[in-house]
Amino acid sequence: MYCSTARVASKPFTAKRAANFDRRMSSSRVQAQPQKATLEQKRALIESVDCFIFDCDGVIWKGDKLIEGVPETLDFLREQGKKLFFVTNNSTKSRAGYLKKFLGLGLDISAEEIYSSSYAAAAYLEATKFPSDKKVYVVGDVGIEEELDLLNINHIGGPSDADKKVELTPGTFMEHDKDVAAVIVGFDRNINYHKIQYATLCIRENPGCEFIATNLDAVTHLTDAQEWAGNGAMVGAIKGSTKREPTVVGKPADFMLRNIAEKGNLEMNQICMVGDRLDTDILFGKNAGLTTALVLSGVTDEETLLSPENDIHPDYYMPSLPELLECKTVNV
Amino acid sequence: MYCSTARVASKPFTAKRAANFDRRMSSSRVQAQPQKATLEQKRALIESVDCFIFDCDGVIWKGDKLIEGVPETLDFLREQGKKLFFVTNNSTKSRAGYLKKFLGLGLDISAEEIYSSSYAAAAYLEATKFPSDKKVYVVGDVGIEEELDLLNINHIGGPSDADKKVELTPGTFMEHDKDVAAVIVGFDRNINYHKIQYATLCIRENPGCEFIATNLDAVTHLTDAQEWAGNGAMVGAIKGSTKREPTVVGKPADFMLRNIAEKGNLEMNQICMVGDRLDTDILFGKNAGLTTALVLSGVTDEETLLSPENDIHPDYYMPSLPELLECKTVNV
Repeated sequence: MYCSTARVASKPFTAKRAANFDRRMSSSRVQAQPQKATLEQKRALIESVDCFIFDCDGVIWKGDKLIEGVPETLDFLREQGKKLFFVTNNSTKSRAGYLKKFLGLGLDISAEEIYSSSYAAAAYLEATKFPSDKKVYVVGDVGIEEELDLLNINHIGGPSDADKKVELTPGTFMEHDKDVAAVIVGFDRNINYHKIQYATLCIRENPGCEFIATNLDAVTHLTDAQEWAGNGAMVGAIKGSTKREPTVVGKPADFMLRNIAEKGNLEMNQICMVGDRLDTDILFGKNAGLTTALVLSGVTDEETLLSPENDIHPDYYMPSLPELLECKTVNV
Repeated sequence: MYCSTARVASKPFTAKRAANFDRRMSSSRVQAQPQKATLEQKRALIESVDCFIFDCDGVIWKGDKLIEGVPETLDFLREQGKKLFFVTNNSTKSRAGYLKKFLGLGLDISAEEIYSSSYAAAAYLEATKFPSDKKVYVVGDVGIEEELDLLNINHIGGPSDADKKVELTPGTFMEHDKDVAAVIVGFDRNINYHKIQYATLCIRENPGCEFIATNLDAVTHLTDAQEWAGNGAMVGAIKGSTKREPTVVGKPADFMLRNIAEKGNLEMNQICMVGDRLDTDILFGKNAGLTTALVLSGVTDEETLLSPENDIHPDYYMPSLPELLECKTVNV
């Protein structure tokens, strides 16, 4: 597991941070119900954090359509000196691959501002000092391979094992590479028995071999027409044959958040998680001690948020991200 | 789930059964260590039960070699009026298909004496009165299909979906049959994303659709050369994309045992489970209230059995099944 005593950047407890702390404490203790963010609160939010992490679908775009006002909002936040990250559990593309979607929608961002679970898997191996003479076996797509290449981590498997079949005759034995010290399992539309057996052999028979899951999502959105079985299926297969639990690096595990905080030398509550889902995005942020903001431009409506059945309360909520542009007219 | 109030055949509490009950109670309370069965105890075992259930590998055969004396032992037990069942978590073959292995080894048994997990899945649907106008989606091999055919249960999927690929273009939508009311997942060397998605759609979208696993074995013995990823992988995949737990019909779930007891009008302790593995066979039998006998002709040696670390104690143990032939020389 990623070490739980991971260094957290130490910063003086400034007046700004103390105010932020007080606000969050009073908000969680006094307010029974979340309150829609006022102009004052939006200003306080922008003032109190140094970094925004955005879930994309329902926040930045909806399906294939950009949410109006988002590019201007991102520009405004950048002008205020904020760091921006766009997180996705998609592991099939690398950050460079995913960037095309952003650019295609007219969003001017850099690959380094994207935090995909393919990158998270590679960043995890970097953070845990993966030995340069060892290899990774990849169940998944080219995105994982591209991120490993950027860190000069050796890998085998991946798309090149897509059409491999296990032909059995008496005595058939599958050889496996004893230098594989980690198996990364990401979404793989070409999952097959060869890959399952190869990954299983590495995890069961190579001492200390890590089992890393980019995410455990039950469903994924391959097309808008329906929900598709997600990486929970691929990881479930390897869990079922190894009886081992994976280290999860994507949402809702907090590796991504801790990695962003460490690399940016930030305290957790200097980061605001912006998402449209209570039980994933907001809970993910809250569990890690981040400031959280829910937008109603995705799957969660105000009725669900304010329902007595919901006990996941973001620090702020607003109809959509571009509401923050209101602050542009005042000096924050 | 298979109904927990399933009818258990009611029989008078005879002197024979009372003696059996006393023996088992005293054995479990007084004996700190299992004792190798004496001639007297072997006679008592044969006297006290009406049915023997055998695990096969390590009990009847080892790899591809029959254990010497087994045919004569089975003949002897039959002469004593005992019912015999041979259980296997193998779901790739039907009972008729599995019979060939027995006959090939010179064992004269009938298909009805075999209890494979492919049959268990079909028997489960029979026991729960699967509607005749509904269908089963099969992830698995021909064994499951053949057993469903014998019970006139409609099915789709199975080996005919082996080469199906999901080709994605924007808007791709996988249709699925709304009449599928159960998905059976057995070992499938041709597992692919089409099958995972189809099974997932049936379980998630068809109200009340059952999710049945023939077994959860992490490994299986496709060849003697190494261990191979087992049905735990296929079931794990569907668990991961549906977030549902399956109803397991093979070992170590007790459906097989209850089904054998019900159909044979037997009490649980009138049945003896004979196996070579403590944590599967013996535990499986003990948990269901069966009499249990461990043989040392398979994976468990006497040292492991008698070790202080082992707390799974069979009612009897003996070097191998043919030890029971000793009783042939005396009138039982």
